[in-house]
Amino acid sequence: MGAICRAMKNCGLDQLVLVNPSPTMDQIELRKMALKALPIYKQRKEFDSVEEAVADCGAVAMTSGVDGFYRDHASTPRQAAPELIEIAAQKPIAIVFGSEDKGMKTEELKFATHLLRIPSHHDYSSINLSQAVMLVTHELYQVIGDFSLGDEKTPPADHRFMERMFDCWDLAMKDIHFCQDEKREHMMMGLRRVLTRGTLTENDVKIMMGLARQASWAAKNLPEGDQK
Amino acid sequence: MGAICRAMKNCGLDQLVLVNPSPTMDQIELRKMALKALPIYKQRKEFDSVEEAVADCGAVAMTSGVDGFYRDHASTPRQAAPELIEIAAQKPIAIVFGSEDKGMKTEELKFATHLLRIPSHHDYSSINLSQAVMLVTHELYQVIGDFSLGDEKTPPADHRFMERMFDCWDLAMKDIHFCQDEKREHMMMGLRRVLTRGTLTENDVKIMMGLARQASWAAKNLPEGDQK
Repeated sequence: MGAICRAMKNCGLDQLVLVNPSPTMDQIELRKMALKALPIYKQRKEFDSVEEAVADCGAVAMTSGVDGFYRDHASTPRQAAPELIEIAAQKPIAIVFGSEDKGMKTEELKFATHLLRIPSHHDYSSINLSQAVMLVTHELYQVIGDFSLGDEKTPPADHRFMERMFDCWDLAMKDIHFCQDEKREHMMMGLRRVLTRGTLTENDVKIMMGLARQASWAAKNLPEGDQK
Repeated sequence: MGAICRAMKNCGLDQLVLVNPSPTMDQIELRKMALKALPIYKQRKEFDSVEEAVADCGAVAMTSGVDGFYRDHASTPRQAAPELIEIAAQKPIAIVFGSEDKGMKTEELKFATHLLRIPSHHDYSSINLSQAVMLVTHELYQVIGDFSLGDEKTPPADHRFMERMFDCWDLAMKDIHFCQDEKREHMMMGLRRVLTRGTLTENDVKIMMGLARQASWAAKNLPEGDQK
């Protein structure tokens, strides 16, 4: 339960609803797993049946780990997420999970407007409940997408800047006697390939240019046998 | 640890590698959480350092939950997964997770060829370790995609079959005196909208057609005041 609350909070959700929860709950384990997400458990709602729990919901997405009767029109959470988020703009939506051991009952599945099946390997397809919650809520969170990876500190280097760097390396190869003159063009092609595998930022190029220049400088200026 | 093993097996992975694992491991908890994935723990490899653990890997993807120094070129697991799977065809790849409490150390991050950051909500972005493992391995599994949702038992109904069904409903509306004749076309447009919200299979259409026909039959054949 604690891991479920934490997964919900990781994905920006806060309304936990329990149907007929077990009256015993290991409070120590709960706190240890929920950590900062404990308020989600404290603010939970409880109902006696799935039907009452989802009464005001504009979509009722039920997860099922097994094939079979009435379950052959399932979609993956990734497929269903955009439509669910669209509905959520107008009405609450319910994502319903069965119990860890038994899953959803067939008589509960009839209330589903969306049937979800999480892709997993046929050797062992049964997924831990809190991890199933994480996978589904993460798909919803990815659709909302109020998340951005850290920005690079500088923009991608432009062509001119890249060429200045390559010029420095061409010179450095010469200055440090890296190879015979007639092979330098070939070596530079190799270096170009290495340094264009990914997009370099201006900061990246500054480092690489500084390195080439320093190599040239060292070849000309450091005394022979210098150990520093 | 058990939940990690289970997540790996759910996603078709089997090689668990531990770096300096804690010498104490709650075996009961391990078995309870790993269930059928226990062999993954038993077949684990152990190393003294991350560097040794990843030595033979063609890609080293490290996960980091925090922004900061040397971490601003991260991608999401979803973005990185296709490239990682491509590399995995030629060399083993490593997906490296830090410890539950401390995450990856900066001095370990330098070995990363890919830096991963899992999208999560800024209110509480720190993700449970076993769930982080599940999210990343699930992205890899989705790329491989050796998973298919159950097939519908019958193909989508074709246009002709759909129109036969609508004809039956048009007649049924008339037979059961659903509305005034001049409003029937309007009502049929509403019914068409409802029944084309999702693709209907041939089985779906058979049910809906049978229902319409039976309504017509009942209106004409059942005695007035019949209670059955």
